[in-house]
Amino acid sequence: MNEHVYKKVEVVGSSPVSIEDAIQNAVEKAGKSLRHLRWFEVTETRGHIEDGKVSHYQVTIKIGFTLDDQ
Amino acid sequence: MNEHVYKKVEVVGSSPVSIEDAIQNAVEKAGKSLRHLRWFEVTETRGHIEDGKVSHYQVTIKIGFTLDDQ
Amino acid sequence: MNEHVYKKVEVVGSSPVSIEDAIQNAVEKAGKSLRHLRWFEVTETRGHIEDGKVSHYQVTIKIGFTLDDQ
Amino acid sequence: MNEHVYKKVEVVGSSPVSIEDAIQNAVEKAGKSLRHLRWFEVTETRGHIEDGKVSHYQVTIKIGFTLDDQ
Amino acid sequence: MNEHVYKKVEVVGSSPVSIEDAIQNAVEKAGKSLRHLRWFEVTETRGHIEDGKVSHYQVTIKIGFTLDDQ
Amino acid sequence: MNEHVYKKVEVVGSSPVSIEDAIQNAVEKAGKSLRHLRWFEVTETRGHIEDGKVSHYQVTIKIGFTLDDQ
Amino acid sequence: MNEHVYKKVEVVGSSPVSIEDAIQNAVEKAGKSLRHLRWFEVTETRGHIEDGKVSHYQVTIKIGFTLDDQ
Amino acid sequence: MNEHVYKKVEVVGSSPVSIEDAIQNAVEKAGKSLRHLRWFEVTETRGHIEDGKVSHYQVTIKIGFTLDDQ
Amino acid sequence: MNEHVYKKVEVVGSSPVSIEDAIQNAVEKAGKSLRHLRWFEVTETRGHIEDGKVSHYQVTIKIGFTLDDQ
Amino acid sequence: MNEHVYKKVEVVGSSPVSIEDAIQNAVEKAGKSLRHLRWFEVTETRGHIEDGKVSHYQVTIKIGFTLDDQ
Amino acid sequence: MNEHVYKKVEVVGSSPVSIEDAIQNAVEKAGKSLRHLRWFEVTETRGHIEDGKVSHYQVTIKIGFTLDDQ
Amino acid sequence: MNEHVYKKVEVVGSSPVSIEDAIQNAVEKAGKSLRHLRWFEVTETRGHIEDGKVSHYQVTIKIGFTLDDQ
Repeated sequence: MNEHVYKKVEVVGSSPVSIEDAIQNAVEKAGKSLRHLRWFEVTETRGHIEDGKVSHYQVTIKIGFTLDDQ
Repeated sequence: MNEHVYKKVEVVGSSPVSIEDAIQNAVEKAGKSLRHLRWFEVTETRGHIEDGKVSHYQVTIKIGFTLDDQ
Repeated sequence: MNEHVYKKVEVVGSSPVSIEDAIQNAVEKAGKSLRHLRWFEVTETRGHIEDGKVSHYQVTIKIGFTLDDQ
Repeated sequence: MNEHVYKKVEVVGSSPVSIEDAIQNAVEKAGKSLRHLRWFEVTETRGHIEDGKVSHYQVTIKIGFTLDDQ
Repeated sequence: MNEHVYKKVEVVGSSPVSIEDAIQNAVEKAGKSLRHLRWFEVTETRGHIEDGKVSHYQVTIKIGFTLDDQ
Repeated sequence: MNEHVYKKVEVVGSSPVSIEDAIQNAVEKAGKSLRHLRWFEVTETRGHIEDGKVSHYQVTIKIGFTLDDQ
Repeated sequence: MNEHVYKKVEVVGSSPVSIEDAIQNAVEKAGKSLRHLRWFEVTETRGHIEDGKVSHYQVTIKIGFTLDDQ
Repeated sequence: MNEHVYKKVEVVGSSPVSIEDAIQNAVEKAGKSLRHLRWFEVTETRGHIEDGKVSHYQVTIKIGFTLDDQ
Repeated sequence: MNEHVYKKVEVVGSSPVSIEDAIQNAVEKAGKSLRHLRWFEVTETRGHIEDGKVSHYQVTIKIGFTLDDQ
Repeated sequence: MNEHVYKKVEVVGSSPVSIEDAIQNAVEKAGKSLRHLRWFEVTETRGHIEDGKVSHYQVTIKIGFTLDDQ
Repeated sequence: MNEHVYKKVEVVGSSPVSIEDAIQNAVEKAGKSLRHLRWFEVTETRGHIEDGKVSHYQVTIKIGFTLDDQ
Repeated sequence: MNEHVYKKVEVVGSSPVSIEDAIQNAVEKAGKSLRHLRWFEVTETRGHIEDGKVSHYQVTIKIGFTLDDQ
């Protein structure tokens, strides 16, 4: 049970609303092609500015998922 | 007055709601055993995924507190 | 068109509300003296604690803006 | 011959025995879906603790493999 | 439009000519199996030496590409 | 259940035998004064040399343990 | 003579040709508003991809210049 | 003898005089509650400015001390 | 009061005397063109050697100053 | 006695057996041309893969040795 | 064959022409006193500016060479 | 003149007096076997503690020296 193997993929999510929403968008999109998603790690937080305001957040995360029994 | 000495402890807070809420949970829990908390520094932001959605955020912070007069 | 030159400045924004609000405050203040702001990168997230609670978030960002045609 | 292109994937292996065994488990699992594995780089070493003892090691590695002629 | 999700893959390109040529080789090879490539970030520059001269450059890049509409 | 708070302490274990043994020594010693140890992260691996041979390994780890219900 | 004070500014140059050309573009643009430029340090190398090829390099540099006697 | 276990704590010392004095203040304060202090590692050097002059240095150090036989 | 915005500039000070003196020189020079200086962070310490001795220290600091009410 | 000066050299050892054996090989080889070796610090752990298995570990270490009285 | 031991030395090459030329200059100079050079790793890229133009590139590389049978 | 090649060596100096004195000790010792020393870069500052006080500072520096015409 402790000998699981995981793979990590790096995904960038965007959102005009919040950092959390950008993370959630990245996780959901990744979930469409990968199964058994288990955790994420934020590696970069940035965003775009338009007209002197933050137009959207752009968060890079690594997503870990189980490789066993796929 | 400028010669205060501070100690830093590293704490991990969790929350299903937001990164800020995870930080606040960590600060409150640390405040139960430590006094004179002064600042925090985020060192890692990660989280768990369940059913293709973020189930909770997990934020590691260092908390600085005054060592004087303890 | 691809040969733009950008400059980055480092700004620290604060907010008692959220990390996003601290970023927005930093962007707005920078926009008062700089034009053509294009993007930001978060380099540090920290904050102050008062009475055992987070009193405000303090987020350091680098802001990139176009140097062309100034 | 010198113009090979390689891809790197990030994989986490586990083992109750040793760090080397966790690396070997990660490499073997990756080898089931990827060919031409060439090298690995350790990026993180951690593990779980149960009953006051290390229950298993968890080692994150990047695995490089040849993209040519696939 | 701002809610794109991107994925990053890590690729190593080689060239006996220049760093730029090694990057270009990596991008072209990646473009054979991935579409909508958008940007790259250099993460490591190294190379091999033969007979006291640089025989080829080896540049590791992360390539970002759009995950939308795949 | 997801709102646990953890604390991390940094401990250095030594062993003449192996890196794994040094980690295990650190975990066991920490377990004498702390309960609910959950995971460790290796942050530094070094060691001493005597008579041209490795005399012992010295591994720095961060140990995470549950703060709840203490 | 050894007690000069320097300031560093962070600038991003672009070029479709090469990394060196992107650096040179950044230096020249900075030289239009700053005098006494002395050295640069590359902090990031990235670029854009169009139609499966590198369309331009984007190099971030810190430029040091003398603050004395301005 | 080689199987000592050490713990590291992170402490911030201040001094209006010098970096060395700030380190010494941190070590002395830590020594009031911890025994067997063995070494320190500087992790951050900063300070406050008042009236255009450095008012005090603030140095963060990790202090290692022996856990054996406590 | 908690919603101050700060800007950071990066400055290099030199001194044949000490690291502290190099920092002080950088702060004083910066204070000639900037007001409301609040803190500094050391990011690099280096120096020149002449005739087998340190001829002067060269310390890079980031200086934070208040942007409000300028 | 406290004013020793040390030099560090960077050496890469290999072994098909284990990380510890690769370190020991590096230390022994360095000991053939250098005396008074005192400590090592692991800076990189990687290895080669052949036929889907780890063929050998390759560990980069810095070795510190006393410069006094040579 | 897999148990080679390598040493790394850190060398800084300069060139008014290009980054690649600076690397090549460093490799050639190192090859005058060291044999069996095998690879290099770029650790820093910087340069000097004169009259508002890059006067030369200065690239720091680590060069790995075989220690066996010397 | 701009095509000098430099080599860097890593040396650790100690002093019971100050960080500057530890640096100076390292430079002087290195100067006994190397000529044309040009600059140093501090990479680590640490020290030993005895009887609750700093007994000596231990500073790791990289020393750059000219390889030309040796």
